[in-house]
Amino acid sequence: MRRWNGWGEAAVEVLLPPSAQALLEDRLGPGTPPRDCSLEEVLARIPPSRLPNHPQVHTDPELRLRHAVGQGLPDWIAARSGRIQAPDGVAFPETNEDVRALLAYARAVGARVIPYGGGTSVVGHLRVLPDPRPALVIDLGRMNRLLALDRLSGLATFQTGIRGPDLEAALRAHGFTLGHFPQSFEYSTLGGWIATRSVGQFALGYGRIEELFVGGRVETPQGPLILPSLPPSAAGPDLRHLVLGSEGRLGILTEAVLRVRPLPEAEALGTFFFPDFDHGLAAARAMVQAGIPLTMLRLSTAEETRMTLLLSGREGWVRLLRGWLRLRGLGDTPCMLLLAAAGARRVVHAALAEAFHIARRHHGRSLGSRLAREWLRQRFRAPYLRNTLWAMGYAVDTLETAVIWARVPAMVTAIEEALRNGLADQGERVYAFSHVSHVYPHGANVYTTFLFRLAPDPEESLRRWQRLKQAASAAILRLGGTISHQHGVGVDHLPYLEAEKGPLGLAILRAMLRAVDPEEIMNPGKLIEGPGR
Amino acid sequence: MRRWNGWGEAAVEVLLPPSAQALLEDRLGPGTPPRDCSLEEVLARIPPSRLPNHPQVHTDPELRLRHAVGQGLPDWIAARSGRIQAPDGVAFPETNEDVRALLAYARAVGARVIPYGGGTSVVGHLRVLPDPRPALVIDLGRMNRLLALDRLSGLATFQTGIRGPDLEAALRAHGFTLGHFPQSFEYSTLGGWIATRSVGQFALGYGRIEELFVGGRVETPQGPLILPSLPPSAAGPDLRHLVLGSEGRLGILTEAVLRVRPLPEAEALGTFFFPDFDHGLAAARAMVQAGIPLTMLRLSTAEETRMTLLLSGREGWVRLLRGWLRLRGLGDTPCMLLLAAAGARRVVHAALAEAFHIARRHHGRSLGSRLAREWLRQRFRAPYLRNTLWAMGYAVDTLETAVIWARVPAMVTAIEEALRNGLADQGERVYAFSHVSHVYPHGANVYTTFLFRLAPDPEESLRRWQRLKQAASAAILRLGGTISHQHGVGVDHLPYLEAEKGPLGLAILRAMLRAVDPEEIMNPGKLIEGPGR
Repeated sequence: MRRWNGWGEAAVEVLLPPSAQALLEDRLGPGTPPRDCSLEEVLARIPPSRLPNHPQVHTDPELRLRHAVGQGLPDWIAARSGRIQAPDGVAFPETNEDVRALLAYARAVGARVIPYGGGTSVVGHLRVLPDPRPALVIDLGRMNRLLALDRLSGLATFQTGIRGPDLEAALRAHGFTLGHFPQSFEYSTLGGWIATRSVGQFALGYGRIEELFVGGRVETPQGPLILPSLPPSAAGPDLRHLVLGSEGRLGILTEAVLRVRPLPEAEALGTFFFPDFDHGLAAARAMVQAGIPLTMLRLSTAEETRMTLLLSGREGWVRLLRGWLRLRGLGDTPCMLLLAAAGARRVVHAALAEAFHIARRHHGRSLGSRLAREWLRQRFRAPYLRNTLWAMGYAVDTLETAVIWARVPAMVTAIEEALRNGLADQGERVYAFSHVSHVYPHGANVYTTFLFRLAPDPEESLRRWQRLKQAASAAILRLGGTISHQHGVGVDHLPYLEAEKGPLGLAILRAMLRAVDPEEIMNPGKLIEGPGR
Repeated sequence: MRRWNGWGEAAVEVLLPPSAQALLEDRLGPGTPPRDCSLEEVLARIPPSRLPNHPQVHTDPELRLRHAVGQGLPDWIAARSGRIQAPDGVAFPETNEDVRALLAYARAVGARVIPYGGGTSVVGHLRVLPDPRPALVIDLGRMNRLLALDRLSGLATFQTGIRGPDLEAALRAHGFTLGHFPQSFEYSTLGGWIATRSVGQFALGYGRIEELFVGGRVETPQGPLILPSLPPSAAGPDLRHLVLGSEGRLGILTEAVLRVRPLPEAEALGTFFFPDFDHGLAAARAMVQAGIPLTMLRLSTAEETRMTLLLSGREGWVRLLRGWLRLRGLGDTPCMLLLAAAGARRVVHAALAEAFHIARRHHGRSLGSRLAREWLRQRFRAPYLRNTLWAMGYAVDTLETAVIWARVPAMVTAIEEALRNGLADQGERVYAFSHVSHVYPHGANVYTTFLFRLAPDPEESLRRWQRLKQAASAAILRLGGTISHQHGVGVDHLPYLEAEKGPLGLAILRAMLRAVDPEEIMNPGKLIEGPGR
């Protein structure tokens, strides 16, 4: 059974190794385990549904509660403290006709609609905002089939409620892969990936979701929007790029055609250590700008490298490794770079050889593939640590931007400093570390994890988070980064969207929303204010 | 001096080798040289300008005439027969402020605006359509500077009126290249490339213009739309993809930030021959789907291979080659595949080796790099043949679609047959041949060249072209191809846009145009009808 107020399966627990716990207590001070509400306590507070009867709309309180919570820290605080706003009903359509009927029902009864995929949004897409209209959640979970596979063209048509593992399994049975592995892979859905412009860990080779999404079908309040499956076209603006990132505002994406690839002939992994972050960054930049065909480049700051090694739980081995790195001249604060390549054997070998060559030129030392293999094996377990940390009295959240190469080092510093000093006036410390895990010829993402102590009062915990989020977002905007590299806008990033799109850009987006949803029933209050009914 | 009624410099003439001419006469019958109007005759027919005075607006008739003609066959027929509609004035802004002032002037005097880059549009973007409002052409030719170069991030900021050779020269001086080489490279401009979603010959490696265009500035009638320079972002719909393909309807793109690359360490070319088109196609598809890092894959049909070899003018050598191909079991109708790679030496070598391996598996024979080098050297000369052929009494035009792999062979057949039979009821033959020059993991373009005889009456020549264009476009839509892979929509493809975007898609685009150009002064009648003032 999935946790209703945390990450993942209730039966799975990932423990924090003692050495990692010691580092954390050293950085933040001891945590105080919070007093969380039980499921029963929260259920008792759910008010009756305001939605009129409909055979497909369920109003069971637990079902409604389980569809009220995303995975952002505000969602967690709301759920754990029982201050949660539940939707009025949940529907599970199975066909496009069902979706159209549900949209018609919502319009008829004056309800708003919140589309629901895997429930993993970290920026508030699923939050039920104050609004006099009842809220209907449309859960796409039963629309999860592979509808067609064109082997020759490498195109697969899926219903969009399918989750990552089911999608990959369906493709693997035919010898194909999509190659899209976001951190939320185990729960998040195809529709959510497209609606939020999601990025997978191997996007460097397989492409971001916008490169994989070829066409599809959106059921809007004004009828279906069909995007034909075409190779790139020069016939006017590309409407796919309006659906990508539309966050449920345009309608419900029910089917998507994806570019899939034959399973690669060869895969390879590599681990390098650099004397500091700047050397690692220069190497990563040189690799991507030279066009080396890799599928992943992931560089951690010295602090994240330290925490990552401690999280392995193998203290003796980590001590040996640190000694070896010192002997090789890498000092006490080495930075770890993981890389991967996949494809034709000949090309994979050349890519790794060239990457090795570039890493050496930047004082990098190869450590074989072991640590990269370990990362690969453990990569979907990290979010489970949030449950463990919460129980110890620590809140953890992540944030992410992308910026041009010239500003990456300053961005890392600015975000981490904004966070570290964000609660200084309360005498609270914040622990923050970062990595770069998506590189482009012209820039890279900066992905920062930050931890702070929960307060006894949940409202105070939320205020701490808000202050940190504001401080980090201000730093991101100051340095010209995007407010979101892969999480989307939702509620938490909405105030910062105008800085990126400009007032005229927002006017264009509002005009477009008005054309498909004049009554503003689709996920109002997310992505962008307005357009105004 | 540039030709006012044809392609390229008046001093440059490219002759048709006798063997190619013989093939053409065999296919079409002898041509009758047309009677073209002289420049003086056409100038005498230009009516006075209807625009009120403005210090930056020129109304000289020859200048207006030279800005009235694109490179589509209807443009040629209009120019050569003197039935041309000239704009009322031409302005040459030098700054963003100039552009804003000109847009304000156009609004104030009730004029419409036609943006002008290199004058190479082949689908009617520059045509002055019937409209009671005077037409002001804004020629960006003086906005042609490199404004900034961020070497670390690989980002170059240009004014958009810069032509291909000037842009590459400016970058090469700093050790960089954009790598964007459309057929029109010598005259077309950066702004035109972006506004029409142009594709370069090496796009397989360097990317289509939409992958190279990072940000910029559009002066719209409602003020500037600024697109910040970011790596990919998940912050909502991507407005760059509305500017790309906007064809002058949103406003005037004055500055663009481009992803540029260091000049490659190594470049390599290859030529292969296959026994037929299907084998070549299977090889090209296997190469791109395996992710081999190539910069070009270009496969000609047997008929185009034949014509290409004859155009080399070296008859003896071609006979020897054909004999050698027969000996190697490739029969009498071999198909030629050219390929290119660029980048790190190690990776380029691996890519070519893997391509060789795949070609062999599909019965391809390597012929070294000579023919590919020859193609590279001659690649911008082909359009000059249009002048030569016209003078012999032949019209030549090209059209292009892109479609998923499963339908590429049927598409080639359908387009060529629609063209070949398109004038059968008049007893006129049409000569058509095709190539695939842009491949994607999920599909490819189909680029068809067609020739037919000019009629003594230019109206009849235009009707012939219209019938052929309609027949080919119907075939493209029937088989689910895009109406344009790299030429844009303009006037000629406008009737077919709804088939690709759908009625709701068009409604979205119209709403967006209304938001930035409520008076519909920007290039009306191109791309999309409406939005309606």
